[in-house]
Amino acid sequence: MKYLEALNWRYAVKRMNGQPVPEEKLANILEAIRLAPSSLGLQPYDVIVVKDPAERQYLVPAINQPQVTEGSVLLVFAAWTKVQQQQIDDYIQNVADTRQLPLAALAGFKSNIENLVKAKDSQSLFSWTARQAYIGLGYATAAAAFEQVDATPMEGFSTEKLNQLLGLDAKGLSAVAIVTLGYRNAETDRLAKAPKVRRPATNFFHRPETKQSSSANDKQS
Amino acid sequence: MKYLEALNWRYAVKRMNGQPVPEEKLANILEAIRLAPSSLGLQPYDVIVVKDPAERQYLVPAINQPQVTEGSVLLVFAAWTKVQQQQIDDYIQNVADTRQLPLAALAGFKSNIENLVKAKDSQSLFSWTARQAYIGLGYATAAAAFEQVDATPMEGFSTEKLNQLLGLDAKGLSAVAIVTLGYRNAETDRLAKAPKVRRPATNFFHRPETKQSSSANDKQS
Repeated sequence: MKYLEALNWRYAVKRMNGQPVPEEKLANILEAIRLAPSSLGLQPYDVIVVKDPAERQYLVPAINQPQVTEGSVLLVFAAWTKVQQQQIDDYIQNVADTRQLPLAALAGFKSNIENLVKAKDSQSLFSWTARQAYIGLGYATAAAAFEQVDATPMEGFSTEKLNQLLGLDAKGLSAVAIVTLGYRNAETDRLAKAPKVRRPATNFFHRPETKQSSSANDKQS
Repeated sequence: MKYLEALNWRYAVKRMNGQPVPEEKLANILEAIRLAPSSLGLQPYDVIVVKDPAERQYLVPAINQPQVTEGSVLLVFAAWTKVQQQQIDDYIQNVADTRQLPLAALAGFKSNIENLVKAKDSQSLFSWTARQAYIGLGYATAAAAFEQVDATPMEGFSTEKLNQLLGLDAKGLSAVAIVTLGYRNAETDRLAKAPKVRRPATNFFHRPETKQSSSANDKQS
Protein backbone atom coordinates (compact mmCIF):
# COMPACT_ATOMS: atom_id res chain seq x y z
CA MET A 1 0.00 0.00 0.00
CA LYS A 2 1.66 3.19 -1.14
CA TYR A 3 0.16 5.42 1.49
CA LEU A 4 3.31 7.46 2.04
CA GLU A 5 3.30 8.42 -1.65
CA ALA A 6 -0.28 9.63 -1.26
CA LEU A 7 0.64 11.63 1.85
CA ASN A 8 3.54 13.17 -0.06
CA TRP A 9 1.24 14.00 -2.97
CA ARG A 10 -1.22 15.91 -0.79
CA TYR A 11 -0.75 19.52 0.25
CA ALA A 12 -3.00 22.31 1.50
CA VAL A 13 -4.28 23.43 -1.89
CA LYS A 14 -4.81 27.20 -2.11
CA ARG A 15 -6.78 27.34 -5.36
CA MET A 16 -9.20 24.71 -6.64
CA ASN A 17 -10.70 24.23 -10.09
CA GLY A 18 -14.38 23.61 -9.35
CA GLN A 19 -14.33 19.97 -10.46
CA PRO A 20 -16.80 17.94 -8.38
CA VAL A 21 -15.71 15.19 -6.02
CA PRO A 22 -17.52 11.95 -6.97
CA GLU A 23 -20.10 10.82 -4.39
CA GLU A 24 -18.35 7.49 -3.84
CA LYS A 25 -15.06 9.17 -2.99
CA LEU A 26 -16.80 11.57 -0.63
CA ALA A 27 -18.58 8.65 1.05
CA ASN A 28 -15.23 6.91 1.61
CA ILE A 29 -13.65 10.04 3.06
CA LEU A 30 -16.59 10.52 5.44
CA GLU A 31 -16.41 6.87 6.47
CA ALA A 32 -12.72 7.30 7.32
CA ILE A 33 -13.62 10.25 9.57
CA ARG A 34 -16.31 8.17 11.25
CA LEU A 35 -13.77 5.40 11.89
CA ALA A 36 -11.24 7.79 13.47
CA PRO A 37 -10.42 6.97 17.08
CA SER A 38 -11.44 9.30 19.91
CA SER A 39 -11.01 9.48 23.65
CA LEU A 40 -13.29 6.89 25.30
CA GLY A 41 -14.74 6.25 21.85
CA LEU A 42 -17.18 9.10 22.47
CA GLN A 43 -16.62 10.97 19.17
CA PRO A 44 -17.53 14.30 20.82
CA TYR A 45 -17.87 16.34 17.63
CA ASP A 46 -20.14 16.55 14.62
CA VAL A 47 -19.24 17.13 11.00
CA ILE A 48 -21.33 19.46 8.85
CA VAL A 49 -21.13 18.46 5.19
CA VAL A 50 -21.84 21.39 2.85
CA LYS A 51 -22.13 20.40 -0.80
CA ASP A 52 -24.62 22.84 -2.33
CA PRO A 53 -22.74 25.73 -4.04
CA ALA A 54 -25.28 28.31 -2.81
CA GLU A 55 -24.88 27.09 0.75
CA ARG A 56 -21.10 27.30 0.47
CA GLN A 57 -21.41 30.80 -0.99
CA TYR A 58 -23.61 31.70 1.97
CA LEU A 59 -20.73 30.82 4.34
CA VAL A 60 -18.15 33.02 2.59
CA PRO A 61 -18.70 35.96 4.99
CA ALA A 62 -17.44 33.65 7.75
CA ILE A 63 -14.67 31.97 5.73
CA ASN A 64 -13.09 34.26 3.23
CA GLN A 65 -11.04 31.64 1.37
CA PRO A 66 -11.37 30.82 -2.34
CA GLN A 67 -11.45 27.06 -1.76
CA VAL A 68 -14.88 27.37 -0.12
CA THR A 69 -16.46 28.08 -3.49
CA GLU A 70 -13.77 26.68 -5.82
CA GLY A 71 -13.87 23.36 -4.01
CA SER A 72 -16.67 20.83 -4.23
CA VAL A 73 -17.46 20.04 -0.60
CA LEU A 74 -16.87 21.90 2.65
CA LEU A 75 -16.56 19.93 5.90
CA VAL A 76 -17.03 21.84 9.14
CA PHE A 77 -15.63 20.08 12.22
CA ALA A 78 -17.77 21.24 15.13
CA ALA A 79 -16.72 20.14 18.62
CA TRP A 80 -19.21 19.61 21.42
CA THR A 81 -19.17 22.60 23.78
CA LYS A 82 -20.63 20.41 26.50
CA VAL A 83 -21.31 16.71 26.93
CA GLN A 84 -24.93 16.09 27.78
CA GLN A 85 -26.14 13.11 29.76
CA GLN A 86 -28.24 12.05 26.77
CA GLN A 87 -25.11 11.87 24.62
CA ILE A 88 -23.42 9.60 27.15
CA ASP A 89 -26.59 7.49 27.40
CA ASP A 90 -26.80 7.20 23.61
CA TYR A 91 -23.17 6.13 23.41
CA ILE A 92 -23.52 3.48 26.09
CA GLN A 93 -26.69 2.18 24.40
CA ASN A 94 -24.76 2.03 21.11
CA VAL A 95 -21.96 0.01 22.76
CA ALA A 96 -24.54 -2.33 24.32
CA ASP A 97 -26.40 -2.82 21.04
CA THR A 98 -23.27 -3.23 18.89
CA ARG A 99 -21.57 -5.67 21.24
CA GLN A 100 -24.76 -7.35 22.49
CA LEU A 101 -24.00 -6.56 26.09
CA PRO A 102 -26.46 -5.83 28.90
CA LEU A 103 -26.38 -2.17 30.03
CA ALA A 104 -25.42 -3.37 33.51
CA ALA A 105 -22.13 -4.68 32.11
CA LEU A 106 -21.30 -1.12 31.03
CA ALA A 107 -22.22 0.65 34.27
CA GLY A 108 -18.59 1.08 35.35
CA PHE A 109 -17.52 2.41 31.95
CA LYS A 110 -20.47 4.80 31.96
CA SER A 111 -19.54 6.12 35.42
CA ASN A 112 -15.97 6.64 34.24
CA ILE A 113 -17.17 8.80 31.37
CA GLU A 114 -19.57 10.75 33.58
CA ASN A 115 -16.85 11.39 36.15
CA LEU A 116 -14.28 12.39 33.56
CA VAL A 117 -16.74 14.86 32.02
CA LYS A 118 -17.81 16.25 35.40
CA ALA A 119 -14.19 16.83 36.42
CA LYS A 120 -13.61 19.23 33.51
CA ASP A 121 -14.58 22.89 33.54
CA SER A 122 -16.17 24.15 30.33
CA GLN A 123 -12.86 25.34 28.88
CA SER A 124 -10.97 22.12 29.48
CA LEU A 125 -13.95 20.13 28.25
CA PHE A 126 -13.99 22.02 24.96
CA SER A 127 -10.22 21.74 24.71
CA TRP A 128 -10.69 17.97 24.98
CA THR A 129 -13.55 17.65 22.47
CA ALA A 130 -11.73 19.93 20.00
CA ARG A 131 -8.64 17.73 20.11
CA GLN A 132 -10.74 14.69 19.19
CA ALA A 133 -12.14 16.62 16.24
CA TYR A 134 -8.59 17.19 15.02
CA ILE A 135 -8.00 13.44 14.86
CA GLY A 136 -11.03 13.30 12.56
CA LEU A 137 -9.62 16.20 10.56
CA GLY A 138 -6.38 14.27 10.17
CA TYR A 139 -8.27 11.22 8.91
CA ALA A 140 -10.17 13.43 6.44
CA THR A 141 -6.97 14.76 4.88
CA ALA A 142 -5.33 11.33 4.73
CA ALA A 143 -8.40 9.61 3.25
CA ALA A 144 -8.75 12.37 0.66
CA ALA A 145 -5.14 11.77 -0.37
CA PHE A 146 -5.84 8.04 -0.82
CA GLU A 147 -8.81 8.98 -3.03
CA GLN A 148 -6.56 11.41 -4.94
CA VAL A 149 -8.87 14.20 -3.84
CA ASP A 150 -7.35 17.45 -2.65
CA ALA A 151 -8.14 18.58 0.86
CA THR A 152 -7.30 21.87 2.52
CA PRO A 153 -7.62 22.02 6.30
CA MET A 154 -8.16 25.56 7.56
CA GLU A 155 -8.52 27.44 10.84
CA GLY A 156 -8.67 30.95 9.37
CA PHE A 157 -12.35 31.77 9.70
CA SER A 158 -14.61 33.67 12.06
CA THR A 159 -15.79 31.09 14.58
CA GLU A 160 -18.55 33.36 15.82
CA LYS A 161 -19.87 34.09 12.35
CA LEU A 162 -19.66 30.49 11.17
CA ASN A 163 -21.39 29.20 14.29
CA GLN A 164 -24.09 31.78 13.74
CA LEU A 165 -24.61 31.04 10.03
CA LEU A 166 -24.83 27.31 10.72
CA GLY A 167 -26.86 27.63 13.91
CA LEU A 168 -24.27 25.65 15.84
CA ASP A 169 -24.52 27.40 19.24
CA ALA A 170 -28.03 26.15 19.86
CA LYS A 171 -26.86 22.60 19.19
CA GLY A 172 -24.02 22.75 21.72
CA LEU A 173 -21.44 22.84 18.92
CA SER A 174 -18.64 25.21 17.92
CA ALA A 175 -16.63 25.07 14.69
CA VAL A 176 -12.95 24.31 15.31
CA ALA A 177 -11.65 23.66 11.81
CA ILE A 178 -12.81 23.19 8.25
CA VAL A 179 -11.64 21.07 5.33
CA THR A 180 -12.44 21.86 1.72
CA LEU A 181 -12.44 18.95 -0.71
CA GLY A 182 -11.91 19.39 -4.43
CA TYR A 183 -9.16 19.45 -7.01
CA ARG A 184 -6.08 21.63 -7.26
CA ASN A 185 -5.90 24.29 -9.94
CA ALA A 186 -2.33 23.79 -11.10
CA GLU A 187 -2.45 27.03 -13.13
CA THR A 188 -3.46 29.43 -10.38
CA ASP A 189 -2.10 27.69 -7.28
CA ARG A 190 1.45 28.92 -6.77
CA LEU A 191 2.06 26.00 -4.38
CA ALA A 192 0.99 23.31 -6.86
CA LYS A 193 4.58 22.56 -7.82
CA ALA A 194 6.31 23.68 -4.62
CA PRO A 195 8.28 21.00 -2.74
CA LYS A 196 6.74 19.94 0.57
CA VAL A 197 8.30 21.57 3.62
CA ARG A 198 8.61 19.49 6.77
CA ARG A 199 10.86 19.60 9.80
CA PRO A 200 13.72 17.14 9.37
CA ALA A 201 13.14 13.87 11.21
CA THR A 202 16.26 14.43 13.33
CA ASN A 203 14.69 17.58 14.74
CA PHE A 204 11.06 16.39 14.99
CA PHE A 205 11.62 13.00 16.64
CA HIS A 206 13.65 12.56 19.78
CA ARG A 207 15.02 9.79 21.88
CA PRO A 208 13.99 10.18 25.50
CA GLU A 209 16.42 11.89 27.82
CA THR A 210 15.36 10.12 30.94
CA LYS A 211 17.42 9.61 34.05
CA GLN A 212 17.17 5.99 33.00
CA SER A 213 18.95 6.66 29.72
CA SER A 214 21.38 9.05 31.43
CA SER A 215 22.38 6.38 33.89
CA ALA A 216 22.71 3.89 31.02
CA ASN A 217 25.01 6.40 29.33
CA ASP A 218 26.97 6.79 32.53
CA LYS A 219 27.58 3.09 32.64
CA GLN A 220 28.94 3.14 29.13
CA SER A 221 31.28 6.04 29.76
CA MET B 1 -6.21 0.91 -1.86
CA LYS B 2 -8.14 -0.83 0.88
CA TYR B 3 -7.55 1.78 3.50
CA LEU B 4 -11.06 1.57 4.97
CA GLU B 5 -10.51 -2.12 5.66
CA ALA B 6 -7.33 -1.23 7.53
CA LEU B 7 -9.15 1.46 9.53
CA ASN B 8 -11.86 -1.05 10.39
CA TRP B 9 -9.23 -3.59 11.43
CA ARG B 10 -7.59 -1.23 13.89
CA TYR B 11 -8.86 -0.62 17.41
CA ALA B 12 -7.41 0.72 20.64
CA VAL B 13 -5.73 -2.48 21.77
CA LYS B 14 -5.82 -2.97 25.53
CA ARG B 15 -3.33 -5.82 25.84
CA MET B 16 -0.30 -6.41 23.65
CA ASN B 17 1.87 -9.50 23.25
CA GLY B 18 5.40 -8.09 23.37
CA GLN B 19 6.17 -8.83 19.71
CA PRO B 20 8.54 -6.18 18.33
CA VAL B 21 7.51 -3.78 15.57
CA PRO B 22 10.01 -4.11 12.68
CA GLU B 23 12.22 -1.03 12.22
CA GLU B 24 11.00 -0.48 8.65
CA LYS B 25 7.36 -0.36 9.73
CA LEU B 26 8.20 2.03 12.55
CA ALA B 27 10.13 4.26 10.13
CA ASN B 28 7.08 4.41 7.83
CA ILE B 29 4.74 5.26 10.71
CA LEU B 30 7.06 8.04 11.86
CA GLU B 31 7.32 9.36 8.31
CA ALA B 32 3.50 9.53 8.11
CA ILE B 33 3.46 11.62 11.30
CA ARG B 34 6.11 13.91 9.87
CA LEU B 35 4.00 14.37 6.72
CA ALA B 36 0.84 15.26 8.69
CA PRO B 37 -0.48 18.75 7.96
CA SER B 38 -0.43 21.47 10.61
CA SER B 39 -1.57 25.04 10.93
CA LEU B 40 0.77 27.31 8.92
CA GLY B 41 2.92 24.24 8.36
CA LEU B 42 4.69 24.97 11.64
CA GLN B 43 4.44 21.47 13.16
CA PRO B 44 4.44 22.93 16.69
CA TYR B 45 5.01 19.67 18.55
CA ASP B 46 7.73 17.08 19.00
CA VAL B 47 7.45 13.31 19.18
CA ILE B 48 9.47 11.35 21.71
CA VAL B 49 10.12 7.82 20.47
CA VAL B 50 10.74 5.38 23.32
CA LYS B 51 11.86 1.93 22.20
CA ASP B 52 14.13 0.63 24.93
CA PRO B 53 12.14 -1.65 27.32
CA ALA B 54 13.93 -0.26 30.40
CA GLU B 55 13.08 3.28 29.34
CA ARG B 56 9.44 2.36 28.83
CA GLN B 57 9.41 0.64 32.22
CA TYR B 58 10.84 3.85 33.70
CA LEU B 59 7.76 5.75 32.46
CA VAL B 60 5.22 3.38 34.03
CA PRO B 61 4.80 5.55 37.17
CA ALA B 62 3.44 8.26 34.82
CA ILE B 63 1.44 5.95 32.55
CA ASN B 64 0.01 3.00 34.36
CA GLN B 65 -1.18 1.10 31.28
CA PRO B 66 -0.05 -2.42 30.30
CA GLN B 67 0.57 -1.45 26.67
CA VAL B 68 3.54 0.70 27.72
CA THR B 69 5.55 -2.41 28.50
CA GLU B 70 3.61 -5.03 26.48
CA GLY B 71 3.97 -2.91 23.34
CA SER B 72 7.14 -2.41 21.38
CA VAL B 73 7.36 1.37 20.98
CA LEU B 74 5.88 4.29 22.89
CA LEU B 75 5.31 7.59 21.11
CA VAL B 76 4.84 10.69 23.26
CA PHE B 77 3.22 13.62 21.48
CA ALA B 78 4.54 16.74 23.19
CA ALA B 79 3.06 20.08 22.14
CA TRP B 80 5.05 23.30 22.27
CA THR B 81 4.04 25.31 25.32
CA LYS B 82 5.32 28.46 23.62
CA VAL B 83 6.54 29.34 20.15
CA GLN B 84 10.01 30.84 20.28
CA GLN B 85 11.33 33.29 17.70
CA GLN B 86 14.08 30.81 16.89
CA GLN B 87 11.47 28.18 15.97
CA ILE B 88 9.77 30.59 13.59
CA ASP B 89 13.14 31.59 12.12
CA ASP B 90 14.10 27.93 11.64
CA TYR B 91 10.81 27.22 9.91
CA ILE B 92 11.12 30.16 7.53
CA GLN B 93 14.70 29.16 6.76
CA ASN B 94 13.48 25.62 6.04
CA VAL B 95 10.81 26.94 3.65
CA ALA B 96 13.40 29.13 1.93
CA ASP B 97 15.91 26.29 1.58
CA THR B 98 13.35 23.69 0.47
CA ARG B 99 11.68 25.93 -2.10
CA GLN B 100 14.83 27.85 -3.08
CA LEU B 101 13.30 31.19 -2.21
CA PRO B 102 15.03 34.29 -0.86
CA LEU B 103 14.12 35.04 2.77
CA ALA B 104 12.73 38.39 1.63
CA ALA B 105 10.02 36.60 -0.34
CA LEU B 106 8.83 35.04 2.93
CA ALA B 107 8.82 38.21 5.03
CA GLY B 108 5.02 38.60 4.85
CA PHE B 109 4.39 34.98 5.74
CA LYS B 110 6.85 35.25 8.62
CA SER B 111 5.08 38.36 9.96
CA ASN B 112 1.76 36.54 9.75
CA ILE B 113 3.08 33.72 11.91
CA GLU B 114 4.65 36.11 14.40
CA ASN B 115 1.44 38.13 14.68
CA LEU B 116 -0.73 35.05 15.02
CA VAL B 117 1.51 33.71 17.79
CA LYS B 118 1.68 37.09 19.56
CA ALA B 119 -2.12 37.40 19.52
CA LYS B 120 -2.55 34.23 21.59
CA ASP B 121 -2.24 34.09 25.36
CA SER B 122 -0.33 31.10 26.71
CA GLN B 123 -3.48 29.00 27.17
CA SER B 124 -4.87 29.54 23.68
CA LEU B 125 -1.41 29.05 22.20
CA PHE B 126 -1.08 25.65 23.87
CA SER B 127 -4.63 24.78 22.88
CA TRP B 128 -3.60 25.50 19.28
CA THR B 129 -0.30 23.56 19.35
CA ALA B 130 -1.99 20.61 21.09
CA ARG B 131 -4.62 20.39 18.35
CA GLN B 132 -1.89 20.14 15.72
CA ALA B 133 -0.31 17.30 17.69
CA TYR B 134 -3.64 15.44 17.50
CA ILE B 135 -3.51 15.54 13.70
CA GLY B 136 -0.14 13.82 13.98
CA LEU B 137 -1.63 11.34 16.45
CA GLY B 138 -4.36 10.58 13.92
CA TYR B 139 -1.77 9.95 11.21
CA ALA B 140 0.15 7.66 13.58
CA THR B 141 -2.89 5.45 14.20
CA ALA B 142 -3.85 5.34 10.52
CA ALA B 143 -0.32 4.60 9.31
CA ALA B 144 0.04 1.85 11.93
CA ALA B 145 -3.17 0.27 10.59
CA PHE B 146 -1.77 0.29 7.05
CA GLU B 147 1.34 -1.44 8.39
CA GLN B 148 -0.86 -3.93 10.24
CA VAL B 149 0.68 -2.72 13.46
CA ASP B 150 -1.58 -2.13 16.45
CA ALA B 151 -1.66 1.35 17.91
CA THR B 152 -3.34 2.53 21.08
CA PRO B 153 -3.77 6.26 21.51
CA MET B 154 -4.09 7.25 25.17
CA GLU B 155 -4.68 10.34 27.29
CA GLY B 156 -4.86 8.58 30.64
CA PHE B 157 -1.51 9.47 32.16
CA SER B 158 -0.08 11.99 34.58
CA THR B 159 1.03 14.92 32.45
CA GLU B 160 3.07 16.40 35.25
CA LYS B 161 4.86 13.14 36.01
CA LEU B 162 5.50 12.29 32.36
CA ASN B 163 6.83 15.78 31.61
CA GLN B 164 9.10 15.45 34.61
CA LEU B 165 10.41 11.98 33.75
CA LEU B 166 11.14 13.04 30.18
CA GLY B 167 12.47 16.50 31.08
CA LEU B 168 9.93 18.14 28.78
CA ASP B 169 9.24 21.34 30.76
CA ALA B 170 12.75 22.68 30.23
CA LYS B 171 12.35 22.17 26.48
CA GLY B 172 9.10 24.13 26.23
CA LEU B 173 7.11 20.93 25.68
CA SER B 174 4.17 19.25 27.41
CA ALA B 175 2.87 15.74 26.71
CA VAL B 176 -0.69 15.79 25.32
CA ALA B 177 -1.18 12.19 24.22
CA ILE B 178 0.69 8.95 23.76
CA VAL B 179 0.47 6.10 21.28
CA THR B 180 1.77 2.63 21.99
CA LEU B 181 2.74 0.50 18.97
CA GLY B 182 2.82 -3.26 19.08
CA TYR B 183 0.64 -6.28 18.46
CA ARG B 184 -2.67 -7.27 20.02
CA ASN B 185 -2.80 -10.19 22.42
CA ALA B 186 -5.96 -11.89 21.19
CA GLU B 187 -6.01 -14.16 24.27
CA THR B 188 -5.98 -11.53 26.98
CA ASP B 189 -7.56 -8.56 25.22
CA ARG B 190 -11.30 -8.78 25.78
CA LEU B 191 -11.84 -6.27 22.96
CA ALA B 192 -9.87 -8.27 20.36
CA LYS B 193 -13.06 -9.75 18.93
CA ALA B 194 -15.52 -7.01 19.87
CA PRO B 195 -17.31 -5.26 17.00
CA LYS B 196 -16.25 -1.65 16.46
CA VAL B 197 -18.62 0.93 17.97
CA ARG B 198 -19.12 4.17 16.07
CA ARG B 199 -21.88 6.74 15.93
CA PRO B 200 -24.16 6.06 12.96
CA ALA B 201 -23.37 8.29 9.97
CA THR B 202 -26.88 9.77 10.07
CA ASN B 203 -26.16 11.10 13.55
CA PHE B 204 -22.50 12.10 13.08
CA PHE B 205 -22.77 13.95 9.74
CA HIS B 206 -25.25 16.73 9.14
CA ARG B 207 -26.48 18.80 6.29
CA PRO B 208 -26.23 22.50 7.10
CA GLU B 209 -29.29 24.19 8.49
CA THR B 210 -28.53 27.63 7.15
CA LYS B 211 -31.01 30.38 6.49
CA GLN B 212 -29.96 29.78 2.91
CA SER B 213 -31.20 26.18 3.01
CA SER B 214 -34.28 27.16 5.04
CA SER B 215 -35.27 29.70 2.43
CA ALA B 216 -34.67 27.08 -0.27
CA ASN B 217 -37.03 24.80 1.64
CA ASP B 218 -39.56 27.60 1.91
CA LYS B 219 -39.56 28.01 -1.82
CA GLN B 220 -40.25 24.32 -2.26
CA SER B 221 -43.16 24.28 0.18
